[in-house]
Amino acid sequence: QPVKFYYDLLSQPCRALYMFLEASKIPYEPVVVKLRSGEHLTDEFRDNVNRFKKVPAINDHGFKLSESVAIFRYLVREKLVPDHWYPRDSLARAKVDEYLEWQHNNVRAHAALYFLRTFFLPTITNKPLSLDILKKCESNLNKCLDDFEENWARQNKYLIGTKISFADLLAICEIDQPKYMGFDPFKGRPKLESWYNLVKDSMVPYYEEASKDIQKVGKMAKAAKAQSQL
Amino acid sequence: QPVKFYYDLLSQPCRALYMFLEASKIPYEPVVVKLRSGEHLTDEFRDNVNRFKKVPAINDHGFKLSESVAIFRYLVREKLVPDHWYPRDSLARAKVDEYLEWQHNNVRAHAALYFLRTFFLPTITNKPLSLDILKKCESNLNKCLDDFEENWARQNKYLIGTKISFADLLAICEIDQPKYMGFDPFKGRPKLESWYNLVKDSMVPYYEEASKDIQKVGKMAKAAKAQSQL
Repeated sequence: QPVKFYYDLLSQPCRALYMFLEASKIPYEPVVVKLRSGEHLTDEFRDNVNRFKKVPAINDHGFKLSESVAIFRYLVREKLVPDHWYPRDSLARAKVDEYLEWQHNNVRAHAALYFLRTFFLPTITNKPLSLDILKKCESNLNKCLDDFEENWARQNKYLIGTKISFADLLAICEIDQPKYMGFDPFKGRPKLESWYNLVKDSMVPYYEEASKDIQKVGKMAKAAKAQSQL
Repeated sequence: QPVKFYYDLLSQPCRALYMFLEASKIPYEPVVVKLRSGEHLTDEFRDNVNRFKKVPAINDHGFKLSESVAIFRYLVREKLVPDHWYPRDSLARAKVDEYLEWQHNNVRAHAALYFLRTFFLPTITNKPLSLDILKKCESNLNKCLDDFEENWARQNKYLIGTKISFADLLAICEIDQPKYMGFDPFKGRPKLESWYNLVKDSMVPYYEEASKDIQKVGKMAKAAKAQSQL
């Protein structure tokens, strides 16, 4: 019986898990949960899938689990998974862990806030985006990506060592969220750019499959912006 | 050679790791880093201890690592540690992992923000705390602790199962940060309170040792507040 995977590809951690499942050939049953229709907010979803009303979530033979990184670690223990995603070597594993913790208050926080405040909230409230909020979000995100460039990205290498790990997948999906909305994460960051392209090239064809929905939303957002500036 | 542990007991994750090291009898060399004197901000600290200029950090035979949860996992692999802190049982471990991820954007975020905005920032900038900011911080923290009560705290049990895990230590240290500043986390939350007392009682005498500095700061904060209201 394959593991049930509840996800929406508009969510960054869902895309990371999707690529991990596909690339590792873990048998799974995909269950799409439309966040935009509020499918995760129903009592049924809360009682049967995830009490926190969020995606991603899994159900493996009745065992329910949420939180992308916890799900990733569980799958590494329970399924046949190539070692490079989460190395058995203790020091390499510790470095992957260090990134997985670091990202919460850094790339994850600021990239998600950028998306939320400059695109999502103005769209659902139908209020124009204030220049102040845009500037503040951009400034925080830029500072955070400078830290990423300085401390994690290295020319033509993955975040940890010479092999791709789950840290790379989470990072690229977070950075994509503002990127597809029109923000340029590469300006003045050649190491981040070379790392980004390396990860993308390593994930053919899963990266494109995972990114198709957020790419569509990004195109619509840019078209709406161009329209409003006519 | 014992592992070098860089910490300041005013920091929540440092207190959690301190209790874990002491209770597990892991041999370590304590190195106090005075955050209030900015000892973590020097070039020397950045180059020799932790490139992210934060505590906690460790150095184990030359291997440097930061991020409390990554450090905890590393120590579990490398040292002799009782199983209950991070169970080998895969499902129990997954549930501990789920909490360790969940807490970042919940208890950790809101308890730390409460401390930062209602106590730390007004103190270092010498500006009075605005009622608006206090109300907003209280409201966010209350909502977050309601979620904690509903989803994690259970009458007379630990967060995961019937044994104490690292999740309990991180949680109690985060909740203590606003608590010692005068915020009551127990009001209307009997399950949270019984969980809290269970953890505290399980950690004699390490809880009191770990908490002495934050207790002192809390007393000073309350005295200053009383003085300003005379």
